[in-house]
Amino acid sequence: MKITVAYVGTRFAGWQRQLNAPTVQETIERAAAVVEGGAVAVHGAGRTDAGVHARGQVAHFDTARTMEAGAWLRALNAHLPDDVRVSQAMVAAPDFHARHSAGGKTYSYRLDLRAVPSPFDAPFAWHVGPEMDLDALRNAANALLGPLDQRAFATQPETGGRPQRPLTAISVAVDAGQALIVVEGRSFLRHAVRGMVGTMVEVGRGRRETDSVRAAARSGIRADAGATAPAHGLCLERVHYDAE
Amino acid sequence: MKITVAYVGTRFAGWQRQLNAPTVQETIERAAAVVEGGAVAVHGAGRTDAGVHARGQVAHFDTARTMEAGAWLRALNAHLPDDVRVSQAMVAAPDFHARHSAGGKTYSYRLDLRAVPSPFDAPFAWHVGPEMDLDALRNAANALLGPLDQRAFATQPETGGRPQRPLTAISVAVDAGQALIVVEGRSFLRHAVRGMVGTMVEVGRGRRETDSVRAAARSGIRADAGATAPAHGLCLERVHYDAE
Repeated sequence: MKITVAYVGTRFAGWQRQLNAPTVQETIERAAAVVEGGAVAVHGAGRTDAGVHARGQVAHFDTARTMEAGAWLRALNAHLPDDVRVSQAMVAAPDFHARHSAGGKTYSYRLDLRAVPSPFDAPFAWHVGPEMDLDALRNAANALLGPLDQRAFATQPETGGRPQRPLTAISVAVDAGQALIVVEGRSFLRHAVRGMVGTMVEVGRGRRETDSVRAAARSGIRADAGATAPAHGLCLERVHYDAE
Repeated sequence: MKITVAYVGTRFAGWQRQLNAPTVQETIERAAAVVEGGAVAVHGAGRTDAGVHARGQVAHFDTARTMEAGAWLRALNAHLPDDVRVSQAMVAAPDFHARHSAGGKTYSYRLDLRAVPSPFDAPFAWHVGPEMDLDALRNAANALLGPLDQRAFATQPETGGRPQRPLTAISVAVDAGQALIVVEGRSFLRHAVRGMVGTMVEVGRGRRETDSVRAAARSGIRADAGATAPAHGLCLERVHYDAE
């Protein structure tokens, strides 16, 4: 079964199962176990960090039950808490793997530009305030297109993976006192999107030149880039699969 | 000082100070006491129930400090949690009273019409699902205009107050899988907005005729109307003052 999952990350210690901390993976596995009548291992497309949200996380699991996808969707949601919802369920091809089959991901990052942020947006946007040069923010975003060594923006970079992971697209949209940064790429090193956003915000605040963003993207040296933006502004919007 | 306050009601036992339960009033009084350097009594325009939100609650308090309104706004927000924000602070006329001076209130109530509700909206919308006749919902709303004995929709009706409290306006707007009901009136009995919404939803579900809404509005008999809608869909949008 392939499921698309939305969740508010606020109270979770991230996606991946942990000892002694609530995670989204464990929450879904528990609901699936009730429906299945036995243990179910749920594999996600990516491990979102503590506090990170998702509108379009994708996961898969094996089931021995002969139950339609629509019935799985309703049954899972009946056993999930309000802050986790399965928005789609489909029968997956036998070789489908949520992580290995993924061809790309879209993340959004929300900045709150208002002097006084709305309490309704506080769990979903980084409050950076009105002192933000939006043209500079857009220039910094554009500077991330082209060669991109994600080690400049990531923390705990995986030693085995390719560090050269260019973005396929990036955009900055401003509306109602907020800036929404959307980043698309085939894959991301850990915390890399948050490192890119943190660096962009330093440019928007006039504390860093656009050229330094391009230089960091080429050097791959963490110290060349800016701080890591907080988790709660980030949302995994979509996981892309080649068939789509 | 007159302040306008927005809050996410989810974790609060309502506006009004209580023993052994967190309330918005107490939260603001604590922040104000730190800024004032002494106890401050904060008086709200209305007592929102447990779980009810506000974008435009209004409150007033007396202060012995000579501090500008803008400084009060910043200082209060610096001592408030993220789910409570002061959006405006003004020096109030000596005879201003947040409740007694109020000339009316605007409430909104959000219904989620989607088959699978978004987890991001779950704390702010009553999930009624797609089986909803929107024309019937609008007819039920219109039936609440005209003579309105709010005892038909309220719980624990105050014995002293006037029961005849007609609405000044009501609207139903549908967008992106949600219906937003906006209700305006000079004053409301306790739970009356939620009682009106619960009754409207019964009409939208085909379980009640529009005429029965008009009949309840005239009789003032609680049993003539429908169930009380849950608290978490309700939001105090604005308090009206005659000077505005």
